Amino acid sequence: MALTAARTPPGVLELLPLEQIAFQDMLDTIRRSFERFGFLPVETPVMELSEILLTKEGGETERQVYFVQSTGNLEKAGTPELALRFDLTVPLARYVAEHEHKLNFPFRRYQMQRVYRGERQQRGRFREFYQCDIDVIGKDSLSIRFDAELPAVIYQVFRDLKIGPFAIQLNNRKLLRGFFENLGQGDAATQALILREIDKLDKVGAEKVAESLRSNDFGLDEAAIAKILHFVQIRSSGHADALAQLDALGRGSDAFNQGLDELRQVLELIRALGVPEAFYALNLSIARGLDYYTGTVYETHLLEHPHIGSICSGGRYENLAGHYTKSHLPGVGISIGATRLFWQLREAGLIGTGASTVQVLVTQMDEAELPRYLAIANELRQAGINSEVVLEPGKLAKQMKYAEKAGIPFAVIAGGDEFAKGTVLIKDLHKREQFEVARGELVKQLRVELEQAQAMSHGTGKK
Amino acid sequence: MALTAARTPPGVLELLPLEQIAFQDMLDTIRRSFERFGFLPVETPVMELSEILLTKEGGETERQVYFVQSTGNLEKAGTPELALRFDLTVPLARYVAEHEHKLNFPFRRYQMQRVYRGERQQRGRFREFYQCDIDVIGKDSLSIRFDAELPAVIYQVFRDLKIGPFAIQLNNRKLLRGFFENLGQGDAATQALILREIDKLDKVGAEKVAESLRSNDFGLDEAAIAKILHFVQIRSSGHADALAQLDALGRGSDAFNQGLDELRQVLELIRALGVPEAFYALNLSIARGLDYYTGTVYETHLLEHPHIGSICSGGRYENLAGHYTKSHLPGVGISIGATRLFWQLREAGLIGTGASTVQVLVTQMDEAELPRYLAIANELRQAGINSEVVLEPGKLAKQMKYAEKAGIPFAVIAGGDEFAKGTVLIKDLHKREQFEVARGELVKQLRVELEQAQAMSHGTGKK
Repeated sequence: MALTAARTPPGVLELLPLEQIAFQDMLDTIRRSFERFGFLPVETPVMELSEILLTKEGGETERQVYFVQSTGNLEKAGTPELALRFDLTVPLARYVAEHEHKLNFPFRRYQMQRVYRGERQQRGRFREFYQCDIDVIGKDSLSIRFDAELPAVIYQVFRDLKIGPFAIQLNNRKLLRGFFENLGQGDAATQALILREIDKLDKVGAEKVAESLRSNDFGLDEAAIAKILHFVQIRSSGHADALAQLDALGRGSDAFNQGLDELRQVLELIRALGVPEAFYALNLSIARGLDYYTGTVYETHLLEHPHIGSICSGGRYENLAGHYTKSHLPGVGISIGATRLFWQLREAGLIGTGASTVQVLVTQMDEAELPRYLAIANELRQAGINSEVVLEPGKLAKQMKYAEKAGIPFAVIAGGDEFAKGTVLIKDLHKREQFEVARGELVKQLRVELEQAQAMSHGTGKK
Repeated sequence: MALTAARTPPGVLELLPLEQIAFQDMLDTIRRSFERFGFLPVETPVMELSEILLTKEGGETERQVYFVQSTGNLEKAGTPELALRFDLTVPLARYVAEHEHKLNFPFRRYQMQRVYRGERQQRGRFREFYQCDIDVIGKDSLSIRFDAELPAVIYQVFRDLKIGPFAIQLNNRKLLRGFFENLGQGDAATQALILREIDKLDKVGAEKVAESLRSNDFGLDEAAIAKILHFVQIRSSGHADALAQLDALGRGSDAFNQGLDELRQVLELIRALGVPEAFYALNLSIARGLDYYTGTVYETHLLEHPHIGSICSGGRYENLAGHYTKSHLPGVGISIGATRLFWQLREAGLIGTGASTVQVLVTQMDEAELPRYLAIANELRQAGINSEVVLEPGKLAKQMKYAEKAGIPFAVIAGGDEFAKGTVLIKDLHKREQFEVARGELVKQLRVELEQAQAMSHGTGKK
C-alpha cells in the first residue's frame, strides 16, 4: 500500500506528551485563577452559523475565517452556512443574547477554547490557538469597579504561572479621546490614524513617531506633536506615582475628566484587591482595538522579556451583543492567547517540558509475580498516586531506562528477596538513590517522597 | 440595525454555566482516572489534511466529514485541503506515525477532545461531541496483558462518576471468528453479515434474529442457527462462572482456541488488578466494528439503564497506522462519548446541574466599606476559596437572592455592627442558617463548612 506522509496542517502547535503536560499545567493554573475570582465556565461550539459570525462591518479577522461544509454541500454556491470561530468574543455575544433570560447578571464567564484564523504562514503565527478569556457582562449598566477586578485576576494568573516579574499596564480610552479633543482633534477616524502611529512607539522610538506625525496630514503643529509624545510616554512607578501623574494632567474635556476619574477609581480598587503596586502601572500609549474598547484598556508585559509583547490584553466595551439583541450589555474582559504564550515562553527558555503525570513506575522483576505487581499498582492508584505498571517482561535495567526517558520520578522494585522479607524498594530516579521500606509502608513513604520532590521542583522554579 | 437571531447550529450541545460545571466535573473525573493508570495527555489539531483523514476504504463516518476552507479557497474545485476530525483514532494513527521516534513504547496516551460528524439531524445525535479515548500502542507487538488493564480503567472511571451499577462486557473477535469457522462459515464477509443480524439481539430478541438468519442466504441449517443463538446469548455472572462458561465451549479451530486463551488471561488479570467481579462479565454477542477489531472487544452497560446502550466501548486492533508508516503498531483502546453520555444521563435524571464553582459570595452591606469587602475576598481567594464579591451596591436581600439563584452555597455578611465587634456573619444558603465568627476565624470556619457541605453532597449522591 502506498503510504501517506503523516503530518499536521501548517500553522498548528502539536505537542509531545511531556510538552502537553506543561501546557495543560498552564491551562489548569489559568482556570484555577479564573474560578478563584468567581468566573463561571462556558464552552461554545467551534462552529457558528456564518450569518452570526460574519457581521457587515467585519474587520481583519473576519476576512481570515475558515468556512465549514459537509461533504454533500461542497458543490453549493454562496457563503457556506457554517464557519469556525475566530475569537471567543463573538460566540460570547451570541451566547449571552441567546441565553439572556437564563443567566444571572452581572454575568461572569470564563472560556478556554481554541479559535481559528486563516493567518499568513509565518513562524510563531498560529491558525489554531487557545484563547483564555474572562468577561463580566452587565445588563443595562456595569460598574467601573469590575474594571479593577480583572487586573487582580491577571495578577494571580501570572504570579501562579511563575514566569518572572510582569506589569499590568492601564490606560483609558476616554482619557485618550479627551486628550485629542483638547488638541482640537475631535474626529474619531483621525484619532485612530494618529494612534496607529503611536502604537509603533516601543518598536521605532519617539523620534520616528514624531516624524511620521509630521509627514502625515493630521494638521498637527510642533507644539501638538510634542504634547502627544509627552503624553503617550507617561508611565508610572508605584501607586502614589500613578495618582500623581494623573493629577499632573490637569483637567480637560468631559471625556478627559471622566477617563481620569475612572483610572483613579480603578487604581484605588486594584490596591484594595491586594495587588502589590510593583505589578500595575499607567501606560498612556495603550489604545487596543480602537473601534471596540471605550474605557479602561489593559496590557500585560513580562519585564525581563519585553520583546514578547503583551501577554494578556483587554478592556471595557460599551455594548457586547448589539447585532443579536436590543438589550444594552456593557462589559469588560481580558484574553490570554495561551498557545502563542506557551510557544513564546518556550522559545525564551522560560518553560521546559513538564514532569510526567506518571508518578511511579511499578517494575516487573519476576514475570511470575505479575499479580503482585498489579496489586501494588492498584494500591498506589487507590491512594491517588498515578502509577504505570510494567506489563511486558524485560530486564530491570531496560525498565529503569524507560522510566528515565519517560520522566517518571520514582520506581518501585520487588523480587524474591523483597517478597520474602515483606519489603519493597523505592528508587528515586532523579537522585539515583534507592531504599527499602516495609511493604505496608509503601504508600505512606511514597507520598512523603512525592511531596518532597514537588516542593523541591517548586523551590528551584520551573525553568 | 436589523438583528440576527442568536442561535447555535443544529446538532451541538451548548450548556448553561451550572450544566457546564457538571460536564466539566465529568471530564475531570475521567481525566483523573486516565492519569491514575499512567496514560499521557495528547491533543491534536481539530483540522487534519484531507488526504490524511480520508483513506480510500473509508466507511460511514468518512462520508460524514466536514471540510474546512479559508475564505480565499472557497471557489477552488476539488476536495478541500482540510477537514475536521471525525474521531480520535485517525489523528492518533497520524500522531504516532509522525512522532514515532520521539515516543516511548508501549505508548499510552489519552485524548479528550471534540470530534465532528455531519450526522442526520435527530434528537440525541450530535454533530460536535467530546470523545475521551485511551489507547496503548506497541511497537511490533503488544502483550495481551494490556487488554486487561483497560477494563480496570473503565471500572475506576464509572465507579468515580457515581452513576450506578455497571458491567464491563468482554468478548474476543478471534473466538467469534473461530466459532464461525467451526460452523463452516470461514468467509469474513459472510461472518460480518451474520454478526450484523446478531447485533440486533438485544433490540428484537432471539426469535427475530433466528428468523432473519433463516431468511438470509447464509447457508445456515437449523442446527447451526441454534448453535449460533446459544453461543451469542452466553453471559457470565461472576469470575468463576466466566471461566466455567469458557471451559464449557470446548476446543475448536486455532483462532477459537486462541480467543479462549486470551479471554482467560484477560479475566485473570482483571481480577488481579482489583476489579470486583460484579463489574465484569462475558458477553459473547459483542462484535464491534468488525473490520477494525481483531481480538478483545469491550462494551460497558449501566445495569439500571440498559436502554442507554454501551457507554464505553473499544478493543484490540492489529495495526494502528498502516496508512502512514511501515512500522507494525498493534494497539488496544477504548472510547467514551462524553457529550452523548452526559446528555443521556441528564435525560435519565442521573445527573443534575453542578454546584457552582463559586463557593462564597462576599456581600456588600455598606458601599462605603467596599475596600473591606475586597480585602475579605482577597483573603478567601489566597486561602484557595473561590469567591465572588458584590461590586455594585444593592439591597442585601437582593444579593442573597442572586446567590441562591446562582447556586453559591455560602455568603459572608458584615456591616457596621460586625466591623465594630471584629466579627463577620457566615450564611449557609442551603440550610438557611447564619452564624457569627471572629473576623480572624473566617477562613478556618469557612473551610470547615465547605468540607462538611461537600461531604454531605457526596453522601446523598449527585442524583
